[in-house]
Amino acid sequence: MSEVRSKALKASAAAEILGQCTTEQKNQALCIVADALVTHADQIIQANLEDLEQGRTLGTPESLLDRLALNHERIQGIAEGLRQIAELPDPVGETLETIDRPNGLHIVKKRVPIGVIGIIYEARPNVTVDAAGLCLKTGNAVVLRGGSAALSSNRKITQIIHLALSGTSIPQDSVQLIEDSNRSSVDEMMKLNGILDVLIPRGGSSLIQNVVQNATVPVIETGAGICHTYLDASANPHMAQDIALNAKVQRPSVCNSMETLLVHESFAAAHLPIIAKALQAEKVELRGCDITRTLVKEAHLATSEDYATEYNDYILNIKVVTHLDEALQHISQFGTKHSECIVTENEENALRFLNEVDAAAVYHNASTRFTDGFEFGYGAEIGISTQKLHARGPMGLPALTSTKYTIQGTGQIRP
Amino acid sequence: MSEVRSKALKASAAAEILGQCTTEQKNQALCIVADALVTHADQIIQANLEDLEQGRTLGTPESLLDRLALNHERIQGIAEGLRQIAELPDPVGETLETIDRPNGLHIVKKRVPIGVIGIIYEARPNVTVDAAGLCLKTGNAVVLRGGSAALSSNRKITQIIHLALSGTSIPQDSVQLIEDSNRSSVDEMMKLNGILDVLIPRGGSSLIQNVVQNATVPVIETGAGICHTYLDASANPHMAQDIALNAKVQRPSVCNSMETLLVHESFAAAHLPIIAKALQAEKVELRGCDITRTLVKEAHLATSEDYATEYNDYILNIKVVTHLDEALQHISQFGTKHSECIVTENEENALRFLNEVDAAAVYHNASTRFTDGFEFGYGAEIGISTQKLHARGPMGLPALTSTKYTIQGTGQIRP
Repeated sequence: MSEVRSKALKASAAAEILGQCTTEQKNQALCIVADALVTHADQIIQANLEDLEQGRTLGTPESLLDRLALNHERIQGIAEGLRQIAELPDPVGETLETIDRPNGLHIVKKRVPIGVIGIIYEARPNVTVDAAGLCLKTGNAVVLRGGSAALSSNRKITQIIHLALSGTSIPQDSVQLIEDSNRSSVDEMMKLNGILDVLIPRGGSSLIQNVVQNATVPVIETGAGICHTYLDASANPHMAQDIALNAKVQRPSVCNSMETLLVHESFAAAHLPIIAKALQAEKVELRGCDITRTLVKEAHLATSEDYATEYNDYILNIKVVTHLDEALQHISQFGTKHSECIVTENEENALRFLNEVDAAAVYHNASTRFTDGFEFGYGAEIGISTQKLHARGPMGLPALTSTKYTIQGTGQIRP
Repeated sequence: MSEVRSKALKASAAAEILGQCTTEQKNQALCIVADALVTHADQIIQANLEDLEQGRTLGTPESLLDRLALNHERIQGIAEGLRQIAELPDPVGETLETIDRPNGLHIVKKRVPIGVIGIIYEARPNVTVDAAGLCLKTGNAVVLRGGSAALSSNRKITQIIHLALSGTSIPQDSVQLIEDSNRSSVDEMMKLNGILDVLIPRGGSSLIQNVVQNATVPVIETGAGICHTYLDASANPHMAQDIALNAKVQRPSVCNSMETLLVHESFAAAHLPIIAKALQAEKVELRGCDITRTLVKEAHLATSEDYATEYNDYILNIKVVTHLDEALQHISQFGTKHSECIVTENEENALRFLNEVDAAAVYHNASTRFTDGFEFGYGAEIGISTQKLHARGPMGLPALTSTKYTIQGTGQIRP
């Protein structure tokens, strides 16, 4: 039997036991794992050095190596993340609905664990701990398939998790790491219907699209964000500039950052040159429509392809529109239904924008950068769902649960 | 452009308008469509006769022809179904969560339509109206792909729906029927990511498995049910017999009927022969384990394959078990996580069964035949989900909705 299948089956068996564990047992295990990671930090750092060395040999860019690197401080942070997960309320067992039928049937709908969750991700070894912690808290076994660049680190981390779990009520097999770094192991995971209940890809868009296009196991799609900010005619100029700058440059590499600025023509004439200057001062390359280019001389011409691109970088498209409807139409055409914002003092326009834009998160007078589980107060985040089924937007712990009906009767039969 | 793509794009454009329609506008349209179906019943029956004639020519069995056949009474019933959908509360717009953050952000999570729903189904033309009605009520456009055996009926029904909608606020394009009866049109629908938001297959297991295995569009899996009833040592014998008979013979062809009866050995000795006789009187063929066959001489030997088969017929497996754990283990191995039942007077065993069995609906002292949207009081049913994501068990109107966050601020930016 392949490594993938054999470990997934172990996870599946463990899930039956884990699913019955109490909140207290799960929280205790999370804290014990957190302590073990700190206690064995030197071993993790040693394993991580091997990954870093291999990365340097392969010519991996420094920015990626930085995301891969672990030190005592980062390990402390990762462990602290687990302790925070332990502090959060346990969604499992929550009663969502109670129905008493005329025939006397008593029906209760409760949250239950999903079962076995597959996570396919890239180089960051912190995801290994984070995903394992979120799954454990929600009573789910997890099959982790990280990138080969972090294999040494992930292997050591998983060993420490297993060691720590051996002293708890949680089955060690609840956390499985796939070490086979061939692409075929990903292919196999994607077809494990009946063993894996869901796959969550975490990483760049090519990884995510590969999973969406090829998995037969149900997928929660995360990630892609071509987000817009629309500055309406009545926008407060200071607020408009603050929000536009924040949405673009506070962290350009993430999915909820802005890729295109839409500006009402009457606002643009007076204020766009100033805002453009502020963006340029932050080293943002500007690409714009014809009207933009009459107002901002340094802007290159933006093509249709530009409007359809998630830069995740210091590049911004700017388009001047003649009315709200044109902005809505542009967002409908080029948006990825992630996060969209209107800056306006006109309540009617704000309401139309909030109602009519089809996206996971729609903002009035606030930066799209807030689309985040922590910023929403969920205390944890598995990712940001960009699909419409199961979960949409920032996913907290309840997104890792399913439901179950229990029905109690006194001998009822269907007539 | 292909028929599938062109109609899906029309549905997608219509969905933007339909999604903004009020509950009143949608309910009014449902009633107008119901009236139109009754008014034009003769035309529908005429078109249906063409389908029936073609079916006879092709040698379709009478039982299938009966499912295909429409008459005035059935059309009245279908129209009444639409009026009942109009009476149900509209889930769209419901506030699910309100979050006020320390930074002043006001976050509201609301139910919104999913967008465009694809339904792939078999011969029954009533599904055409039913699915269109449920989607319309929840603000979703729908792309219907029925079986070729009902094409004439479905085409006429869709024409009447379009005619009826022309006098309402609902775009006619909200309901699209794919008339191309080649398999390639199904293949194309399954890959329409970005246009279709979800696919719901309704029909036999080969249809459903084809969609689950090949769709890249998210799927809601419905249908397969290998359901068990476990008669515990302390079961009330009369109740046990009533529930077992009801679960098997009240309607054997459906997914929530029983396929395997598990019986505790101490209960079996005294009561299984009597229950087996009652089942045989209802023309149920029995297949059993060795112990069963010593108690019920007419039972054939049940194989592992039998335990893994959804008969949907007058056939039943019987297995005698030595304790509750063996019953749980059997269900875990052979069940499809649909509906499972324990009959017992022992509260502790009942609780264990309700907690430990992993299925959409778990019963204590009631027939599994109750797993149904109407029986649960939902007033409508799109199907019974056998997957764990998005919806599980009987799906009422909320299963056809997604969610959206709206965030109102006063210029907040992320630090």
